[in-house]
Formats: sequence, structure tokens, C-alpha cells
Amino acid sequence: MYHHVKKLMYTVTIGEPDPKFGKMLLEQFGGANGELAAAMQYSIQGFNCEDAARKDLLMDIGTEELSHLEVVGALIRMHLKPMKSNREAAEADPLVAIAGGGGVALFDSMGNAWTADYLKVTGDLAVDLRSNIAAEARAKIVYERLISFTQDQGSKQALQFLMTREITHMRAFTAALDSMEKPQFSVGIIQPTPHLVDQFFNGSTGESQYGESDFVGPWNHGNGLVPVESEIKGGEGLDVKPYDPQPGTEKTSSIDSTPVGEYTNGVGKKQAALHEKINAEAAKNAVVEV
Amino acid sequence: MYHHVKKLMYTVTIGEPDPKFGKMLLEQFGGANGELAAAMQYSIQGFNCEDAARKDLLMDIGTEELSHLEVVGALIRMHLKPMKSNREAAEADPLVAIAGGGGVALFDSMGNAWTADYLKVTGDLAVDLRSNIAAEARAKIVYERLISFTQDQGSKQALQFLMTREITHMRAFTAALDSMEKPQFSVGIIQPTPHLVDQFFNGSTGESQYGESDFVGPWNHGNGLVPVESEIKGGEGLDVKPYDPQPGTEKTSSIDSTPVGEYTNGVGKKQAALHEKINAEAAKNAVVEV
Amino acid sequence: MYHHVKKLMYTVTIGEPDPKFGKMLLEQFGGANGELAAAMQYSIQGFNCEDAARKDLLMDIGTEELSHLEVVGALIRMHLKPMKSNREAAEADPLVAIAGGGGVALFDSMGNAWTADYLKVTGDLAVDLRSNIAAEARAKIVYERLISFTQDQGSKQALQFLMTREITHMRAFTAALDSMEKPQFSVGIIQPTPHLVDQFFNGSTGESQYGESDFVGPWNHGNGLVPVESEIKGGEGLDVKPYDPQPGTEKTSSIDSTPVGEYTNGVGKKQAALHEKINAEAAKNAVVEV
Amino acid sequence: MYHHVKKLMYTVTIGEPDPKFGKMLLEQFGGANGELAAAMQYSIQGFNCEDAARKDLLMDIGTEELSHLEVVGALIRMHLKPMKSNREAAEADPLVAIAGGGGVALFDSMGNAWTADYLKVTGDLAVDLRSNIAAEARAKIVYERLISFTQDQGSKQALQFLMTREITHMRAFTAALDSMEKPQFSVGIIQPTPHLVDQFFNGSTGESQYGESDFVGPWNHGNGLVPVESEIKGGEGLDVKPYDPQPGTEKTSSIDSTPVGEYTNGVGKKQAALHEKINAEAAKNAVVEV
Amino acid sequence: MYHHVKKLMYTVTIGEPDPKFGKMLLEQFGGANGELAAAMQYSIQGFNCEDAARKDLLMDIGTEELSHLEVVGALIRMHLKPMKSNREAAEADPLVAIAGGGGVALFDSMGNAWTADYLKVTGDLAVDLRSNIAAEARAKIVYERLISFTQDQGSKQALQFLMTREITHMRAFTAALDSMEKPQFSVGIIQPTPHLVDQFFNGSTGESQYGESDFVGPWNHGNGLVPVESEIKGGEGLDVKPYDPQPGTEKTSSIDSTPVGEYTNGVGKKQAALHEKINAEAAKNAVVEV
Amino acid sequence: MYHHVKKLMYTVTIGEPDPKFGKMLLEQFGGANGELAAAMQYSIQGFNCEDAARKDLLMDIGTEELSHLEVVGALIRMHLKPMKSNREAAEADPLVAIAGGGGVALFDSMGNAWTADYLKVTGDLAVDLRSNIAAEARAKIVYERLISFTQDQGSKQALQFLMTREITHMRAFTAALDSMEKPQFSVGIIQPTPHLVDQFFNGSTGESQYGESDFVGPWNHGNGLVPVESEIKGGEGLDVKPYDPQPGTEKTSSIDSTPVGEYTNGVGKKQAALHEKINAEAAKNAVVEV
Repeated sequence: MYHHVKKLMYTVTIGEPDPKFGKMLLEQFGGANGELAAAMQYSIQGFNCEDAARKDLLMDIGTEELSHLEVVGALIRMHLKPMKSNREAAEADPLVAIAGGGGVALFDSMGNAWTADYLKVTGDLAVDLRSNIAAEARAKIVYERLISFTQDQGSKQALQFLMTREITHMRAFTAALDSMEKPQFSVGIIQPTPHLVDQFFNGSTGESQYGESDFVGPWNHGNGLVPVESEIKGGEGLDVKPYDPQPGTEKTSSIDSTPVGEYTNGVGKKQAALHEKINAEAAKNAVVEV
Repeated sequence: MYHHVKKLMYTVTIGEPDPKFGKMLLEQFGGANGELAAAMQYSIQGFNCEDAARKDLLMDIGTEELSHLEVVGALIRMHLKPMKSNREAAEADPLVAIAGGGGVALFDSMGNAWTADYLKVTGDLAVDLRSNIAAEARAKIVYERLISFTQDQGSKQALQFLMTREITHMRAFTAALDSMEKPQFSVGIIQPTPHLVDQFFNGSTGESQYGESDFVGPWNHGNGLVPVESEIKGGEGLDVKPYDPQPGTEKTSSIDSTPVGEYTNGVGKKQAALHEKINAEAAKNAVVEV
Repeated sequence: MYHHVKKLMYTVTIGEPDPKFGKMLLEQFGGANGELAAAMQYSIQGFNCEDAARKDLLMDIGTEELSHLEVVGALIRMHLKPMKSNREAAEADPLVAIAGGGGVALFDSMGNAWTADYLKVTGDLAVDLRSNIAAEARAKIVYERLISFTQDQGSKQALQFLMTREITHMRAFTAALDSMEKPQFSVGIIQPTPHLVDQFFNGSTGESQYGESDFVGPWNHGNGLVPVESEIKGGEGLDVKPYDPQPGTEKTSSIDSTPVGEYTNGVGKKQAALHEKINAEAAKNAVVEV
Repeated sequence: MYHHVKKLMYTVTIGEPDPKFGKMLLEQFGGANGELAAAMQYSIQGFNCEDAARKDLLMDIGTEELSHLEVVGALIRMHLKPMKSNREAAEADPLVAIAGGGGVALFDSMGNAWTADYLKVTGDLAVDLRSNIAAEARAKIVYERLISFTQDQGSKQALQFLMTREITHMRAFTAALDSMEKPQFSVGIIQPTPHLVDQFFNGSTGESQYGESDFVGPWNHGNGLVPVESEIKGGEGLDVKPYDPQPGTEKTSSIDSTPVGEYTNGVGKKQAALHEKINAEAAKNAVVEV
Repeated sequence: MYHHVKKLMYTVTIGEPDPKFGKMLLEQFGGANGELAAAMQYSIQGFNCEDAARKDLLMDIGTEELSHLEVVGALIRMHLKPMKSNREAAEADPLVAIAGGGGVALFDSMGNAWTADYLKVTGDLAVDLRSNIAAEARAKIVYERLISFTQDQGSKQALQFLMTREITHMRAFTAALDSMEKPQFSVGIIQPTPHLVDQFFNGSTGESQYGESDFVGPWNHGNGLVPVESEIKGGEGLDVKPYDPQPGTEKTSSIDSTPVGEYTNGVGKKQAALHEKINAEAAKNAVVEV
Repeated sequence: MYHHVKKLMYTVTIGEPDPKFGKMLLEQFGGANGELAAAMQYSIQGFNCEDAARKDLLMDIGTEELSHLEVVGALIRMHLKPMKSNREAAEADPLVAIAGGGGVALFDSMGNAWTADYLKVTGDLAVDLRSNIAAEARAKIVYERLISFTQDQGSKQALQFLMTREITHMRAFTAALDSMEKPQFSVGIIQPTPHLVDQFFNGSTGESQYGESDFVGPWNHGNGLVPVESEIKGGEGLDVKPYDPQPGTEKTSSIDSTPVGEYTNGVGKKQAALHEKINAEAAKNAVVEV
């Protein structure tokens, strides 16, 4: 259940309204990496989460992002205000000015309607947490750019507040992923094909007119990875020998989501039972330490 | 410049065509986490990348994903074939059968046209690499689920090949991010607000009818994070004291993308010059070790 | 600021999971007339609302719809559960099963991603309230149809709860519109052209193969309306004499939103000042009677 | 069957072309509340309408809106003309200028392609008429804002013509809804839960930094509605006792659309038969008085 | 101005309703190559057309397609009818059944909302006519496939009627293009670069596992075209010598649309004047022979 | 399999960056008729093509278009560069500047995300080739307009290169269609209804306020076509006598795609066998003359 408190999480004040900056700010209201996207991504992951502890985390942050939507919305409204009565201001975004009456709406800085296509929700907790870490990094960089495009102190401070929270959330999601105690590259329940998984394929070669060329770095040499040249360049190509997948071979965590699929060799049932047990244990105390 | 070699990267064979499984597989052709999404996300990041070495990486993997698009397309076409001539098969996806003639097209398993809204491209390399790590994790789990929903050996082996490559790429993107030698939570050039950045806000409280409750875990307690209760629950709320953002205070890497914004305190110019120097150095050799 | 309480607003229980019914229910989660659409439409209208009293109303109902999103999400998750492990169930919606892991996500019953194109937000309060009355009527009929397509008692009762609330909201929005004390067909500040506004144009004539014909009813005859035949049928056509619009001629309410436009003859400024006065008056008391 | 008459319904003339105003006007050509949206919403409702008399109404107005699409298109084309040959004009909307050759196309003022997601079509006549009343109110306010952003007399007069027609249609749809003789809040065939339907839930409380607070008004007190406080604020919360839905209990009209659902207690069959009878009766005369 | 005649252009009758076939038919109502797409593409091209004679053609066919939308809509409604009251039928398309009440709406066979992204409108008449020829060919093949998936005679005959009209239109558009008397490959006003325009680039080489290989055919050898091998295959690559574009060098027709651009060397002005002259001449007679 | 060569297909250089022109150029990167649309349309048609020779053609051109995507991307990046650090430049497209960091991404000139709805892929080769001819004509005219809106020589030359290739491709697709040796208006396997197919329906009549009227031209008179007047104008209307479709009656080519449908009278099987035979024959030689 949700409750709304009329007080904004952060008190927004601005100097002179700057409608073109207001339009830029819409990125963080109805844009791909904006506050609604964050709120929905985490909350819906939370609705689906089988682990009660990390569900709490997802709902905590998902709800805070809704509060941020309200804060950034208030900031934007202050900047958009001249669109209501000034033709030149209105020209910058007629969708906001004419159709929306000069207020905020779920569009980005170029008038694209918000879409759930922005969200990354797989229902696999360890995967979703990675999507969230990346989402927070994106939101951080977008806020920073907005800060670096305005000189209005009130706006800068409000954006600094919102930007800071993204780093907090990035740290929290990272801690939650770490607390699952999974090996760094273990995803799901089926191990990748040995040998093939170590081959880095050199799909782009040669030198450009602008001096770019072919590099050897830690991503194709070292870290267990070896470079493989394409047959078109006289190389051996990837090791494409057929290999049968084996559900249940990958290293998993007790916190992992129940794997999806009809032929999971019973891993699904075991994991579902494990969740029930962990959550039942946890539910015995009002506030639980993991 | 691109060149196409008629030989598929992996030889696909299947037993009995299974059109409803073919429809499922469309997730990885024209779906949100599918091969075109991967190919485009990495290639376009590559087009924009200022660091010639990691641009090479992005183009290598972006190009390999195009080859995967072709492989998964071949697999799907084999499964969809009955849609051409069998009414019941055609009912499963009339968009494929009637409009598309029973072949592959850029739709997902529910007929949604592929959209660039699926992509995450910020132009900040360290951020984009995080988006790519998450993208590979998502692609891995989707392939695994497809494997666990079929018993056709040829299909399983083809999917195992494709799934394995995602883990290879996840490792490569991680190595590339590590090689930038940035602190784990440093994004961009503006430090988050001290103290506030350590506060984990408890936005969701109480107990549900289903036994879920409020947890203390490493994401809100420890790792430098401290829990903060909302004013609506009698807590102190977040530290919302205004704080002025300071471009140039965050720890950066020589590999970082040039920061975006008009008021970056000259960090932008310095970084752009640095890139020019590093790339010029590298361009002296045909194949370069980073 | 938002706060999340873990307890669902309504306790959901079901009998046997019915994944195809779960798919139908997605209409009310991520569909055009579903709970997120309602929550966002009212909340964003609320963010923009200049009248503090009716803003309170919009936030009350917008927030309740978020709680409904959570309730209907819980119901759907129970029904979708077999999609996680059963191939036939998964075929009904592979986007949910394969990409989403069998949980809820912001898609409708045919897999369309939720889009803000569903929302109707003009920033004119009297118009927005009409959009909300219509939205509630749509949500009511959709819930009713869902009820009439299932025999599971727990599901029916949960849907009855949600359906009932739509009628409550429809009544509240109607009361709010009535309380503005505007004439029924007064919208904005410019009167329609006299005489022309009374002409009902008979754009469709003749008889169909199926017995349909041309009718005279209270919508084209009476209520001040008179039927006009098209010139193609030998009629006089509409009265198309040019007529100059006169901002400030339409009957308005003290609660009306500030009109948008550069040439509003000062009506805009007067209305903005009026709002400030009314809200200031109201703000003197913690709970205010309108 | 449709027929096109080359003569425009309204003769459009303008003074100086104003391409940025032309761009604004696109809202009413390919925008969410524009003429195509109106034409399609009413015509498709008309295609589906079981009541021959109100189907006539829907086709009359749906067809008139097509004629309006042509009129507003002519107006826009006059304003966009400089985009064909002037670089600065073309910058305002390159999608129109470069891709479309400077003519009209089905985009809104920010270049969004028209989508059927804008339409509200439920197939329940009494619901659809409410959606139409709201749609006309939205179209009216958008025309008015456009009028208030230009000083070109010819444009203002053309927009005044189109704006006036929206009020005519709003009156006609209202008369049609009234003629169904349904109680104001009766939708469909299932009564809402007694008592619960009277509870207005106070989901947003407290006071904002900007002086907004909690109000008592006719939407939560009076009109049969009573305010209910949330448990988080120490209130009793809504009456969530399970209640079985009863198809056939709501007050209906002989004009109501046939209810949809498998378990409608036979209400569906009765209503379908009723329609057949009413329409057969009406079909006996070429022009019928309702 | 449009007028609607209640009589359908073709009398539709069917045998047994087949809801899954009805769903397939939605391709031609709200699908990418369906009747609304055709109606809108031609009508909007018509609105923009500077040549009064071919504008007449575009409006003739655009209007007929609207009449077809109505016919195919009637056919679909007959097939969808069981979705109103039968759960199994409703499962095939809950968006139609639950949200739309079992009637037609602007969705395709997989529930995608119609979008103007389907349309091809460039405002260059000779280009648009080519788009229309292709569009008619697509519509023809889609109707034919629908015919070949049903055994209901009434449905087949209705589809045969609609399919036939596409060929009529394809012939008319071809005649209109021919009547412009332009060389087959002349588009616009700038000649392509000599020599380079004759080079067919062999971008795909080698042999696939499935026996596909590299071909020489009339598209890369003959017709003035010569094959060129890529540098990656040891070839010379394309002739990439820079070449300055020369507006006014391409062969044009007196019917050509006015070219778009600021630097057209006055071709734009001449063409606009030519149109005015031709149309003025034509307007002297009520019905004009071209 | 794809391979990327770092060298751009065309060396791009520009004078002064022009960010607003860069924004215009995005039409050809992520726009409806841009290079990705071309690359995907042809490549996916190629994936599905049953005729190995014309599949080679489709892959050749599809791959070249990918190389063009890279070239136009490089050109655009040069022009967009000021968006990284200049507020006024950034205002022209905040989606590019703020969210994308000033690089290219899959958006058009108005910020619309690229969508596969732009593509025309039916799986019928003779139809798809027509769609491709039209697509090339559209791409040509768009490049030409871009050329005519800039005075930067390097940009003009790069665009001239890309524009020229579209004409090459248009010629190649035309040669491929001609080489199928089908009658000009034969599409698929079912003949249109005789007599009806010759009737041109005069759906738009009368004279406009602007002098437009009803024309007789080669599209409605001659070429086997005869004009038919609507009943609403006192004409006889179309010949709507029911007519049974006859699969197998249309003139076909040995190269035609296998027809789709369950009731194709065995034409499907025969055509599939024919393809196998032709391809097997061709596969005997490494490079094959058609």
C-alpha cells in the first residue's frame, strides 16, 4: 500500500525560470533513465522478488524514486512556467505548452512518451541487480550533465541531491548482489561451454583513416581470455563443436530466483522450496537481520 | 566497413520444427534483450567511443552479435516453417505467418516491433560498460530459459553456443571496466554530497499479509551505509541540506569519456586533449598492447 | 513524498492458478485503462494542479491507484505462476515467461509495453476531471468483463473490490467537477461561434445492407441543436462565415486553471492571481473545508 | 462507403506563413487529441455500435472529423511552406522538412507518429460516450490555446470554426448519453460493493513546503461519500471484507451494449435480443425518430 | 470534405464465425499494410500534392481505401463475435475481447496499435507513387494469404473483392508514374556520381553450410552495372573520389514536386511556378483530360 | 557471419561543425528511410530468401548499407560535437546531448527511437523487391534534400557518395525484379476478379475553393482501366458480384517465393520443390551465373 505525504522530499527553489533547461530536465521525469523508469523498474522487480529481504530493498528504493519523480517534477514545473504565456518559450516544446498546458507530463526532452520498453526486468534477482547498478550509473551521469548545463544555484543543488541518491542506490544494489555470494560470472543454472567461453573473437580488424587500429588488452588477453582470429582473416575461428547444456551445473546461491523452464532437472523445485524456508524463518521477527 | 561471409558462425540443425518454440525464440532476434539489441548497443557505443582501444573491443563484440543475429535467425526460421502452410501453426503468430510469410522479422515473441528504446547508450564509457555487463547477464538468462523449455537437441546446442558467448562478453566488458582503474562507485566528475550519500532511506515498512517484513542487510547497514527512517514513521528523514555540486571533484581515469556540459570547470577540455594524446600514441603501432 | 506499507490494501487469495486468465488480467496492470495509467494520469494532473483543494483529491486517488497496481499485480502473479515451469502455460505469453521470468511487468494482455500515450493530461482542471470520469468508467467496465470471464471466487472478489473503487472515484471526480460551478458546456475562455455551434451536421446518410438508416434523435434535434444536411445531399451545409475568437467571453470559474496562450486578453494573469489568493486563504488551516 | 468532395468544409486563408506556428498546429492533425484521433475514435465506435440510432450519430461526427482533418491540414500546409526552401524554418522540424518535404504528415508538434494508443474504444456505448465527451473537451481547450498563441486573423478564424464544432459534438454526445436514461454512476451490469463504494480514501496527507494541505470537499464529504483515513495515519482503512460480484444487479438501459463475458447470468443474451428488436423496428422507416 | 454513405461498398456475409481467423484479418484493419495505412498514405500524399490531376487520383484511391476499411471491419466483426461471450475465443485476443468488448479496433493480428510509422510519405510525387505501387503489392499478397487460410466462402469472396482492388490501384499508380515521363532511375534534381553509380559492391561472399554461394546475375553484371570486390577480399573497392553534387543536373518532369532545400540553384522556384501554371490551365474546365 | 573492417567505406571530412545540420542528418542514421532501415530491410529479406542468387544480392546490399550507417554516423558525430560543451547547441536536441553525451544514437531528427515498424518485409520476393525499389527512391530524395540544406563541401560530398549508392541499388533491385520475368501486375498466385479489376472508382469529385477539380488521366482512362462513378453521384458503382478466388491462376515465376496458406491447391509444395532444385543446381559452382 502506498501513502503520499504532501511535503516534498527536497525543497526546490529556483532563480529565473529557464524553459529550455526545463525541457532538458524532462529527461529525468519521463525519459529513458529518469525517475519513473527507476521507480517502476525497482518496484516491479520488488513485486516479483521471492527473497523477502531483497524485496524490502527493492521496495525501499523503488518508493524513494517515486518521491524523486515528484521532486524533479516540481523543479521542472518552475522552469516550464513561461511556456504558459510566452510564444517563444512555447515553441521549444509545443507538446508541453499546447497539449499539456505548460506542466510536466510523461515525455522526455524531445517529447517521446514514456514507455515500459525502457525497463529491464527479468525476474532473476542477480541479473536484475546488475541492471539496477547500471541504471543508477546512467542516472548519475545524466544528472551530472544537467548540472553542468545550468548556472542556476537552486537547480544545481536540487540536482545534486537527486544525483547523490543514485550513488547511494548503486552502492546498496552492489551490496545486495555481493551478499548473494555468487561467483562474478555465474548467471543462472547452466554452465557455459568450457574452452569456447574463454575465446575472445576478433570481429573488427584493420586500421581506420583516423588512426584507429587493432588492440590487445586485458579484455582479449588475460583474465582467462584468449584472442581468436576470424576465418576471413586466416584464423581458426571459434570452437563451434556442439555441446549439450547441463541445467544444474552452474554455481548458485540460496538467494537466487527460482529458475524458469520446464526441463531444469528439478533445480526449480528445490530453489522454490528453499525460498519458502528462508522467508518463513525471516518472517518470525518484525525487523530481520540478514 | 562491414563484410558478410555466407558461412554461419555456428551450423544450425534441428529435429522436428516446433513453431510455438520458434515464436519464443523471437525474443532473441527482435526482442528487448536479443541479438540485434546487443549488436546495436555495442556498435553504436563503439562509433562514439573516444578511446581507440576499448572502441576496438566494442566493435569486436558488436560485430559478433550481428553474426549471432544471423545464427538465431536461421534457427528460428527452421522452427517457424510450418507457419507457411498450416493454419494451426499460423494462429500462433499471424504477424509472422500472414504479414511476414512465415520468416523471421524484427519482432519479439509477442509481436512487438524492435525499438531502439531497448538500447542503453550514454556516451560515458564507464557507464556504458556497466550497461553492457548487465545486458549480457540478461541475454544469458534468457537463453538459459529457452534451453530449459525445449527438448530438441540441435536447438539446445545452438542456444548453448549463443549463451556461452554472452558470458565471454560479460567477462570482456568487466575486464575493460576494471582496466579503467576507477574506484567502484566513481561515475563522472562530480562527487556526491558527503553524509547524504551514506544514508539508506527506509521507504517501505511494515509487514504484509504474506509474512514479508522490514529487513536489515548489508545494503542498508554496513558498507558505509546507515539506515534512515522516514518522517512519516517518526524518523529524521534524509539530510536535505542544500549542497553545491563541484565539477572536477570525483576521481577519474585517463580513459574516461570527455565529460559533457558547459560548466565542467575545464575538465572537458583536459580530458579531450588526453584522449587525443593516448590515441595518437597507440596509432603508431598496427596492433597495440594496452 | 511517498511511503510504501508492505501490507496490501486488499488480501488476495485464489484457487487454482489460471495462466490464461492471468494474461487477461495484465490489461489492468500494464494496459491502456489499467491501474498504472490511472495512477499516473491523476498524480501528474495533481503535480500540475493550481487549486490546492482539488490537487489534494487528485493525489488521494492517484496514490490509491498505485496501491491497486500492487493488488492487481499480486493477483496476476498468482495466476501466472505456472508459466515459470510449464511449457504450455509459457506459450500463452512468452514475453512474460521467457523474458520476464513469469512475473508481472508493464505489458498488457497482448504484450504491449505500457506507454504514456494512454494518458490524458491537459493541465486544464475542468477538462482533466472529465477525462478522469471517462477513465473510471472504462476501468469499471474492464474489471466487470474480467469478473465475467472467471469462476474463481477469490479472483472475482478481488476484482469486485477494485471495480468498486472505480465507481467511488467516478463519483468523487464528478463532485469535484460540479463544485467548480461551471455551465455544462463551458470549456476554457473563448465562446464558440453562435449559430454554428447549434448545427448538427448529418455526415452519414442512406441505408445499409443490414437495415441501418438515418435517425433523428435528441443529439441532432432538440437540446438547442438543429440538423444540417450536407451540400452533397442538396443541403445548405454548415454556416462557415468567418468569426473572430474573443478570449474572455466564456463563462469561467474561480477554480479554473490559468488559461494558456500569449493573447488571452489578460485573463491568464487574473486567474493566476486568483489561485494564489484562494490557496493562501486555504493554507491558513491544516485541514480545510472547501 | 465514403465519398470525398474536393471542396474544403471551411475556406482557409492566412496572412504571413509562420512555420513554428504550423508546427504547433500539428497537434491537431497527428496529435493525441487531434482530428484523426477524433475521426477514428468515433468511426470505429460506430462500426461496432449495436444501436442503429446512436451508430448514426457516431458516423455523422466521425465523418465530420475527417473533414476537419482536411481543413486543419490545409491550414498547416500554408504555415509550413517556408520549410521547403528556408534552412532556419526547416530546423524547427526536420522530420517535416527533410523526410516529409515540408507537407503535413501524421506527426504531432514534437514529431511523434500518430498511434492508435491515443484512442479510447471499449465497445460499451455508455462508456464510449463519456470518453467522447472528454475527448471533445480536450480538443476544445487545445484549439483555444492555439488561437491564443497566434495573431494571424485567418488562422484564428479557421481555428474558431474547428473549436466551435467540438462544443457542438460535446453537446450531441451528452444528449446521446442522457437519452440512454441510465443513472449517473451506473456502468455495466454489476453493482459495486455497498458501503465500500461510499468510502473516500485519504491517500495523501500532511502539508507541503509550499503551503498545500489536506482538504475536505464535496468529493470526500457529502454526495454519499465519507472520508476514510489510512491505517498508516491511525485510521481504520477501507472496508475490505470480501464480497461476491452479482452480474445483473446494476441498473441498465435498453440501449446498453451487450455485456461481455462468459458468466453474465444470461444478461448478455437478453440484451443482444433486445437490440435486434429495437433496430428491426427502427429499420422500417427511412429516417427514424428515436 | 467527406461524406459517409451507410451502405457498405461490398455486402459481407459469412458462414460460421471463426474468431482466430478474425484475429488474422486484423492485419488488414489495423496492420502495417492494412486499409487504414493505405487510406492515410494516399490521402495525406493527396493533401500535399501540387499537381491537381494526380492529387485527384490520390484522393480517389485514398477515399476508396476508407470504404475498404469499413468492409474489412464488418467482416472481422462477424468473425470476432464469439469473443464477447466465450472464454476460449476471448483468450485468442484479450485486448480485443476484454478491453475492446469484442469489436474491431486499430490493432493488428498481434495486438499492436496502428502507428503512422507504417506510412511512407515524402512529398515527392514520383517517389510517393513508387511507395504506393509497393504498398499495393504488399496488400495484395496479404489478402491472398488470408484467402488461402480459410475455407469460408463468404469470407473468401469478400477478400477476393478487396484483393482485386489492390491490383487496380497498383495499375493506376503505375500509369500515373509513367505519365510523368521520367527516366526510370531519375529521382529528384541531383545526378548521382558517374562511374560510382555503375559499381555493384560485392558485400557478401563465400559459401554457407547450406550450399549458398556467390552469384553473378543481371543485378551486378549487365544493365550498366559492374561488380566490384571489397578490399578485404583483395578487390579495389568502390570509387570513393569526392564529387561535388550539382542541383539541377538530373532529368526532371513538369509534374515533379517542387524540390526541397535552400540551395537548389533556383530549380525550386521554377518548378513551383510551373505547377501554378499547369493547375491554373487545368482549373478552367470542370473535368479535365490530362 | 559478419566482419568489421576499421576503415570507413568513405573518408569523411567537414569544415565547421553545424549541430543543427547534424540533427537533420540523424534522419539517415536512425530515421524511417535511413541506413539502418535499409540494412535491416534487405538483410532480413535476405535471411528469409529461398532463391540463393537473389539472396546473395540482398545480403550484398544489406551489408553495404551497414557500412553506410557507419559513414553517415561518422559525419553526424563531427557535426554534433559542439552539443557536448555548448548549451545553445545542446538545446537543439537534449536527447542527444544530455542522455546520449553528444554522440549518434538510433533516433531520427526529432528524437524518435528507431523502430522495426519502418521495415517492409513480406517474405514474397517479387513484392519485397518492389518495396526495396521504393525504399531506395525515398533514401535518394532525402539525401538530396540534406545536400540542398548545407553549404559545407565535405558534408555535401559525403552525402553525394551515399546518395549515389541508392541509385545503384535501385537499379540492381529493378534488374533482379525484371530477371524474375513476371508480368508487371502479377503478384502471388490468385488472379484478381476480371472486369472489376479494370474499374477505376471515382471516390473524390467536385471542385475545391482553390481551383482543384476532377480529372481524366491515363490512370483512370486507358491502360485497360475505365472510370466508374459512385452511386452517391448517380453512377453504377463498382461491379460487386461475388467471385470465388482461384489459387494457382496467376502467372508465376520459377523464382517466386513459396506461396503461404493452407489452401494453395498444392502450388506451395511445387514451388518449394522447385527452389530446392534450382539452388542445388547453382550450388555446384562456387560463383554462379544466373
